[in-house]
Amino acid sequence: MTRVAVFGASGYTGGELLRLLLAHPGVEVVQATSDQFAGKRLDYPHANLRGMSSLRFVPHDALEPCDLLVSCMPQGGLINRWARVRELAGRVIDLSADFRLDPAAHERWYKKHPRPADVPGFVYALPEWTASALPEARYVAVPGCMAHASLLGILPLVRAGLVKPELVVDAKTGSSGGGATPDRASHHPERASALRCYKPVGHRHTGEIENVVERLTGTRPSVHFSATAIPSVRGILATVHGFTTRPMDEAEPLRAIAMAYREKPFVRLIRPNTSASPFPEPGPLQGTNYCDLSVDVDSERNRIVVNVAIDNLVKGAAGTAVHAMNLMLGRSETEGLGFRGLHPI
Amino acid sequence: MTRVAVFGASGYTGGELLRLLLAHPGVEVVQATSDQFAGKRLDYPHANLRGMSSLRFVPHDALEPCDLLVSCMPQGGLINRWARVRELAGRVIDLSADFRLDPAAHERWYKKHPRPADVPGFVYALPEWTASALPEARYVAVPGCMAHASLLGILPLVRAGLVKPELVVDAKTGSSGGGATPDRASHHPERASALRCYKPVGHRHTGEIENVVERLTGTRPSVHFSATAIPSVRGILATVHGFTTRPMDEAEPLRAIAMAYREKPFVRLIRPNTSASPFPEPGPLQGTNYCDLSVDVDSERNRIVVNVAIDNLVKGAAGTAVHAMNLMLGRSETEGLGFRGLHPI
Amino acid sequence: MTRVAVFGASGYTGGELLRLLLAHPGVEVVQATSDQFAGKRLDYPHANLRGMSSLRFVPHDALEPCDLLVSCMPQGGLINRWARVRELAGRVIDLSADFRLDPAAHERWYKKHPRPADVPGFVYALPEWTASALPEARYVAVPGCMAHASLLGILPLVRAGLVKPELVVDAKTGSSGGGATPDRASHHPERASALRCYKPVGHRHTGEIENVVERLTGTRPSVHFSATAIPSVRGILATVHGFTTRPMDEAEPLRAIAMAYREKPFVRLIRPNTSASPFPEPGPLQGTNYCDLSVDVDSERNRIVVNVAIDNLVKGAAGTAVHAMNLMLGRSETEGLGFRGLHPI
Amino acid sequence: MTRVAVFGASGYTGGELLRLLLAHPGVEVVQATSDQFAGKRLDYPHANLRGMSSLRFVPHDALEPCDLLVSCMPQGGLINRWARVRELAGRVIDLSADFRLDPAAHERWYKKHPRPADVPGFVYALPEWTASALPEARYVAVPGCMAHASLLGILPLVRAGLVKPELVVDAKTGSSGGGATPDRASHHPERASALRCYKPVGHRHTGEIENVVERLTGTRPSVHFSATAIPSVRGILATVHGFTTRPMDEAEPLRAIAMAYREKPFVRLIRPNTSASPFPEPGPLQGTNYCDLSVDVDSERNRIVVNVAIDNLVKGAAGTAVHAMNLMLGRSETEGLGFRGLHPI
Repeated sequence: MTRVAVFGASGYTGGELLRLLLAHPGVEVVQATSDQFAGKRLDYPHANLRGMSSLRFVPHDALEPCDLLVSCMPQGGLINRWARVRELAGRVIDLSADFRLDPAAHERWYKKHPRPADVPGFVYALPEWTASALPEARYVAVPGCMAHASLLGILPLVRAGLVKPELVVDAKTGSSGGGATPDRASHHPERASALRCYKPVGHRHTGEIENVVERLTGTRPSVHFSATAIPSVRGILATVHGFTTRPMDEAEPLRAIAMAYREKPFVRLIRPNTSASPFPEPGPLQGTNYCDLSVDVDSERNRIVVNVAIDNLVKGAAGTAVHAMNLMLGRSETEGLGFRGLHPI
Repeated sequence: MTRVAVFGASGYTGGELLRLLLAHPGVEVVQATSDQFAGKRLDYPHANLRGMSSLRFVPHDALEPCDLLVSCMPQGGLINRWARVRELAGRVIDLSADFRLDPAAHERWYKKHPRPADVPGFVYALPEWTASALPEARYVAVPGCMAHASLLGILPLVRAGLVKPELVVDAKTGSSGGGATPDRASHHPERASALRCYKPVGHRHTGEIENVVERLTGTRPSVHFSATAIPSVRGILATVHGFTTRPMDEAEPLRAIAMAYREKPFVRLIRPNTSASPFPEPGPLQGTNYCDLSVDVDSERNRIVVNVAIDNLVKGAAGTAVHAMNLMLGRSETEGLGFRGLHPI
Repeated sequence: MTRVAVFGASGYTGGELLRLLLAHPGVEVVQATSDQFAGKRLDYPHANLRGMSSLRFVPHDALEPCDLLVSCMPQGGLINRWARVRELAGRVIDLSADFRLDPAAHERWYKKHPRPADVPGFVYALPEWTASALPEARYVAVPGCMAHASLLGILPLVRAGLVKPELVVDAKTGSSGGGATPDRASHHPERASALRCYKPVGHRHTGEIENVVERLTGTRPSVHFSATAIPSVRGILATVHGFTTRPMDEAEPLRAIAMAYREKPFVRLIRPNTSASPFPEPGPLQGTNYCDLSVDVDSERNRIVVNVAIDNLVKGAAGTAVHAMNLMLGRSETEGLGFRGLHPI
Repeated sequence: MTRVAVFGASGYTGGELLRLLLAHPGVEVVQATSDQFAGKRLDYPHANLRGMSSLRFVPHDALEPCDLLVSCMPQGGLINRWARVRELAGRVIDLSADFRLDPAAHERWYKKHPRPADVPGFVYALPEWTASALPEARYVAVPGCMAHASLLGILPLVRAGLVKPELVVDAKTGSSGGGATPDRASHHPERASALRCYKPVGHRHTGEIENVVERLTGTRPSVHFSATAIPSVRGILATVHGFTTRPMDEAEPLRAIAMAYREKPFVRLIRPNTSASPFPEPGPLQGTNYCDLSVDVDSERNRIVVNVAIDNLVKGAAGTAVHAMNLMLGRSETEGLGFRGLHPI
């Protein structure tokens, strides 16, 4: 039984992680930290965990040694406590951007990295693409949720040389990606009807996508990323608009994507005429670690469109952490991630 | 391995049942019927089951022998095929109102029952209250979703003599209770902002609630039931307004409810100051078989309010069918019903 | 041209008031106060007013003399500045509860009233019932939004002696009634799926309703009020459950309600078979000053149900302020309140 | 008083048109046709018009002579009755695509045009760009809603030579654009959580946009259009992704857009730092004829993003019909279109 601590466990990704880990047959949650809810039971802020555990939150500073620590701290939260965490935790999975980018890119998109020497120790966990590095990894960085969705659509096409390296990504996202802290933009009366392109240019995930595509395919793309808030809580739909390198119809990109994810249990390519709901939608993926994909080609204009749907809190965060953990621990990839989602929802 | 057929499996309760049964360790789904989708795979109409099974729908008439049949047919669908179903299925669980009420009540609220002699063969499956009759039951009727929620709130109070037998039940419900067939009232532009008391009086579940309370407690209440459509897909919140038989505060009814559900794994009483979300809400119950309850008393006016939240498609339908099936088969009550729900959602 | 100041104009009722007053032919908005947005244009927080006015917010303390002041300050905001406001404003309309209740009731439901001697100077503005007092009124208190909806349904029945004085009111409300200040309960991910009876007993509007019914009909009722949050932004549906004083069908209460609102332009009784949407719903009332009503009777159980729908920010707040203002100024009742609402929405 | 008939008045654009025309000081609605609701009052299907008119629907065939007819018939509805309509109506405004495209384009995107000789008689009504042709126009075609939003963003940039003629348009839309007829995709339980790119390529408005840009600017662009359903009822957000012809920041495109719409009352450019809601959103535009626009530039990648928000039923349909009508009749542009929208909503 692997002894796992959840560091920063009172937010939305922390809650998802607890939901998944408390039901996971191979691990025991030994600590969950939260300064705000210290002393309260785990189900105090997470209503869905009602009656599932009698564990109580402890302050961040009360962290004790554990086999594996998953950090759901916000940006900067792990960097600032890295010296101590490294001492206490045998292995670490981080859900923030603290150790995702090389120091130069980190400085460009966030700020000067205070611990550049520690960055190379982290493996970037995109399990369908970097699984082989995970069993040996001691430190793991989980991708940003919108970068993750975008990459799953972009990588097979770039690798197969089907698409020009100028890509427009128009990502739509629910409100839970913004976290559990109230503010004006997420106040229900302001957010309930929101359909707003809140980050037309300059989104930080731009750098992450460009970086990872280059690292994994050798081609450096220009990614033109925009993020739009839509009136839902969970879910991302990333629409990747690309241009084919030569005339083609759907057959070739369908094949490339199918090949890329052939034995990947969590990525599903929706083929034409197989569903009454033939487009990827995050709705029925809520709570699951699945990613649904589709591909369409406008042969007349040489455009290719890949749609990618995930649950930002699961495949885009906590689920990938568990997926990575399973690989790190040599367990079955899908362990603890069996939930199939709801329809209708 | 019990061989189970789902009769009428293309609607919303059918989909939920398939989701639960396909992941259930003790049963094998051998047939799923649908005239509309005959020949298509189960995941054709149920996007969440994508890749979960290679079974295909067969027409209703192609039903073959099975150990247990669960019918998700609409009102009248089972009655009309009862002779044949009875021959093919060892045991039957029905989710419609076909065999819920005694023939007189059936005629009062629906229409003259065409097979009155078969009604007494059915056990009414309210597992927290009628579990003892289920292991021996051959035929089982699952309660109506709004009746179910209401009864879980009413029964402990009436049995303990804490409440007068005049009860106002104001039930709020999402759109999925209306089924998968499109109509004007459920057309998205008409339904998305709906807050409409569409059945202020005369709702059929009135009779079911009065009937069952009398049968289980010996007291015949007057139930004043109204149903209101609210802008969500899943979930019921039944607000039971009653008047106490004598002055009291919350302590006594809390005790009565806690006692009634002491060892019932799916009913949770929310006690004061134990949650940042202290009121029962169907949101985090979506997909689960849980029921959350709270009780409040206005001592000054002798009013007692019990709020009861469930997912209409699970605790209110498919989940109770599985719960009943587990008891019929002598298996653990909670088998296949382990999903804990999502937060936020 | 009446010179009007809006005191506390950056919240939701303040915004609605500005929308109505800026388009009103008989008044000029001379000042709008807000400490938070002082120096910004009115359309800075109120996106719908974009380009409608070049006025800028001033701090509360910069208030200057005006003919009429409408206060949208939160509870206590006007009481605390009453000495000064009274000096500067010829007439005052208050949207808070500061001067709604007699001092004893105020103390019971809020806290000890610091200026009890000033309370009797205020007329309670329920225009369909207290219009005659408004032309002479110098100070006016606008009803609470849920009290307002409830009263419009209760008053005709009690006055006509059709209903027993024990009433259960189950009111459903959108999120905008909670105001513009972010908090956890109104954070979008927490509120978007909310169906929670957040005030089962003890809601302050209980006292207001009992008080006003007694004052206007001579009968003191017991009002059993519960408030439920539903997943929408605007709108209240108050479902009044009563018991008839003698056997009857719908005819008599329909007549009583029709009589009560015969020449009242903003209250509409929906008669059977006249609409494809035969139940009152706040959806198509958004932005309007209308109130839709229906009545249903369960003759078998002597229950009567009156459903009342309004927009909490208009009929429940800013619209009634303008309606009262029109009557105070001797103008046409409907001036500036002509918007008919949207369908679908 | 211009005598106006609404042809096909029971759907959503028909309802909006009635709402606007019934309150318009310069016209009288003399007939409204609907086969489905013939004999019913206008407020039977349109709940928001309750009490606003005592007119009743007549069958399409009962059409009588009028000064001006507005057709809200679905695709093909007007073409098929054109001989008769032309005889009875002095002037005609059509909201469908029947006479929007030249016959060749019509055949490419719809089907062979049965009356090609009549197409040139129609003026395409994009009031901010083609106003000068409207006073003399006898026959007018209103743009498609998504084409309209896209064009308002694209035209100023192409005309000013700021953007390359390869444009990706990612348009998000609510459910009301699909009309009032129920179907599976718009059934509330299926549509409520929808975030689906239902037309990634091949959308008919592609041709309309390319056509009109060429006609009005002389440059033929390649438009790469995708349409995504989002979980709301009204509203379109069109995100136009383009590439600048040379390095620039926001200043130049802001100027070009500001110039293009300088004296256009319904188009509003949101400038940086002027609003707490600085991005165009269709929410507060619901019910209005306004269009909100913003522009952002990623200088590093030479990308320009223009976001355009409208209400698909008003600016995208009925409002533009009234706007065009005002210009045809020589009346003030804004007459009958004064509603400013709601916030919050």
